[in-house]
Amino acid sequence: VSGLSYRDTGVDVAAAERFLTAIEPLVRSTHGPEVVHHPSRFAGLVRLPGGTSIAAATCDGVGTKTRHARAATDYEGLGIDLVAMSVNDLLPLRARPLLFLDYLGSGRLDPARLQAAVRGIVAACRRGHCALVGGETAELPGTYPEGTVDMVGFAVGLVDESDLPDPSSMAPGDVVVALPSTGLHANGFSLARAALFIHGGLDAESPFPGSDLTLGDVLLTPTAIYVDEVLTLMDRARVKSAAHVTGGGLLGRARAMLEPGLAMRLDPDAYEIPEIVELVRTTAGVPWSEMASTFNMGLGFLAVVPEGDAAAGEEAGWMRVGEITAGAGEVDLGYA
Amino acid sequence: VSGLSYRDTGVDVAAAERFLTAIEPLVRSTHGPEVVHHPSRFAGLVRLPGGTSIAAATCDGVGTKTRHARAATDYEGLGIDLVAMSVNDLLPLRARPLLFLDYLGSGRLDPARLQAAVRGIVAACRRGHCALVGGETAELPGTYPEGTVDMVGFAVGLVDESDLPDPSSMAPGDVVVALPSTGLHANGFSLARAALFIHGGLDAESPFPGSDLTLGDVLLTPTAIYVDEVLTLMDRARVKSAAHVTGGGLLGRARAMLEPGLAMRLDPDAYEIPEIVELVRTTAGVPWSEMASTFNMGLGFLAVVPEGDAAAGEEAGWMRVGEITAGAGEVDLGYA
Repeated sequence: VSGLSYRDTGVDVAAAERFLTAIEPLVRSTHGPEVVHHPSRFAGLVRLPGGTSIAAATCDGVGTKTRHARAATDYEGLGIDLVAMSVNDLLPLRARPLLFLDYLGSGRLDPARLQAAVRGIVAACRRGHCALVGGETAELPGTYPEGTVDMVGFAVGLVDESDLPDPSSMAPGDVVVALPSTGLHANGFSLARAALFIHGGLDAESPFPGSDLTLGDVLLTPTAIYVDEVLTLMDRARVKSAAHVTGGGLLGRARAMLEPGLAMRLDPDAYEIPEIVELVRTTAGVPWSEMASTFNMGLGFLAVVPEGDAAAGEEAGWMRVGEITAGAGEVDLGYA
Repeated sequence: VSGLSYRDTGVDVAAAERFLTAIEPLVRSTHGPEVVHHPSRFAGLVRLPGGTSIAAATCDGVGTKTRHARAATDYEGLGIDLVAMSVNDLLPLRARPLLFLDYLGSGRLDPARLQAAVRGIVAACRRGHCALVGGETAELPGTYPEGTVDMVGFAVGLVDESDLPDPSSMAPGDVVVALPSTGLHANGFSLARAALFIHGGLDAESPFPGSDLTLGDVLLTPTAIYVDEVLTLMDRARVKSAAHVTGGGLLGRARAMLEPGLAMRLDPDAYEIPEIVELVRTTAGVPWSEMASTFNMGLGFLAVVPEGDAAAGEEAGWMRVGEITAGAGEVDLGYA
């Protein structure tokens, strides 16, 4: 297989993983007994004094999706992405969003662009039920070249210790339910850009096949905010483990959910791979395994429930997409 | 006066303030009754359910100080700066640091540089008594040119509602006490760089007058972490208002502390202006008012206490630097 890979685009996922392994003991040295180590490592967890409440904290950016913005108004969607990336990461822990802060860094303050971003952040905070209580708008000439922006979000949520999902209770026969993504969300944009724009010779104004939209419009579709859907499912079903499908793609996130002795089989006919994902794959001949390790492949959020709760999940609008089996950590997508 | 100003270096503080004013109503639209609006706006405050505990959240970066790093090991100090900038901002609210998250953005992951940054972050989290519970290391080719890095920090602390300082209790005759800064901390680096390197023709290896250090060493001195000193003062004295002296400089932060009908007079003989600040001023002829609106001028943290508590402050190691008077928001530094 000789298609384009993420490594070719200048993003070294393996190096990032080595870095995280190297710093782990250092990071742990700051942890007192108040820090809770949960197998689902999407959020940091700290017990609050005098009770059973736990604060969950997350931090994420929107990656190089910002480079696809053409007009100032495109930053409104990027603001939604920013909130989604952090707030959705609270949900695998069943943490209810409490507050959000944003950091917008650029070389020169562009009020139209930044106000659009804040409009999106505000709309998304309302949808995610969290208060926007601060942030920083940094003007750093020299760090950012003219026109580039980085956006970073930070969310805090609350969960009662007894409500934390218990991945160790997962067992063969459990059902995987999922929510559809709205497209690429905010991951894999360096690969998508290289595949479509450099390898494929397309640009933001290229028509998107089978629609009235441009490729730029489709790429910039904001990330879904899953707060209501996930918390409702968790009220109605016993969710044993859950994942927001982001960095590492569907394959990486699904693998990370598995406890020793388990595997996951997903039914490729149970959900649709977004056309934008197919376009990236076919334009640059990206191998399926690379695609599924980079993109969400159409599934934005996964949850594992007992068979007896699968119907409740489907009634709450979730798709039944697969099952937990005995195994050694394999994830079988049917195509990668 | 025709000396160098911050505006000349590409940083438009007035535009930033207009932006903040423009977004204020939008931001407020996300605030339910759980959000606490305190006159000291360093941190966002949200009441936790079922009690009197309040979460305080802050976000800040280290600005263009990163551009002064020469070797990977210099990032260790920048990691300390990063924690200091967010954690010190919790302290004016008397919030006890609980957790910290970092975001490190660059074009290409440089493990030596990033591991040094994490070493500094970890050391500073220990000094500030907060757990490093997460973060994001983003590799964004295209957003960041080779060699540039942005560092963003987020901190959460806790304060009981009854312990929040009450700035409305400030009155003429109250005393201003302060802690010394270690140098420029992490503010005003675009101006310092322009003054020293461009206007003055100096470079990082230039000897720093009267010492064995280079100019680069002095510029990179890490920001002080004031957690222990401030919380101890707040235990021993009635602190009515406090400020971490960052963006806006000593003048801007002191002005922002004042309630209507009050002014502040600081004694220029009560503290020392750091030599690096003097070097920036004299090298480029920066006006005193511009200096004091950009740099901390040697005072890293301010607190207002009643006259009767000033001695307790001095015993706790704070400098007595000035007083609150009747007035209309004037801050008299004796030189700007």
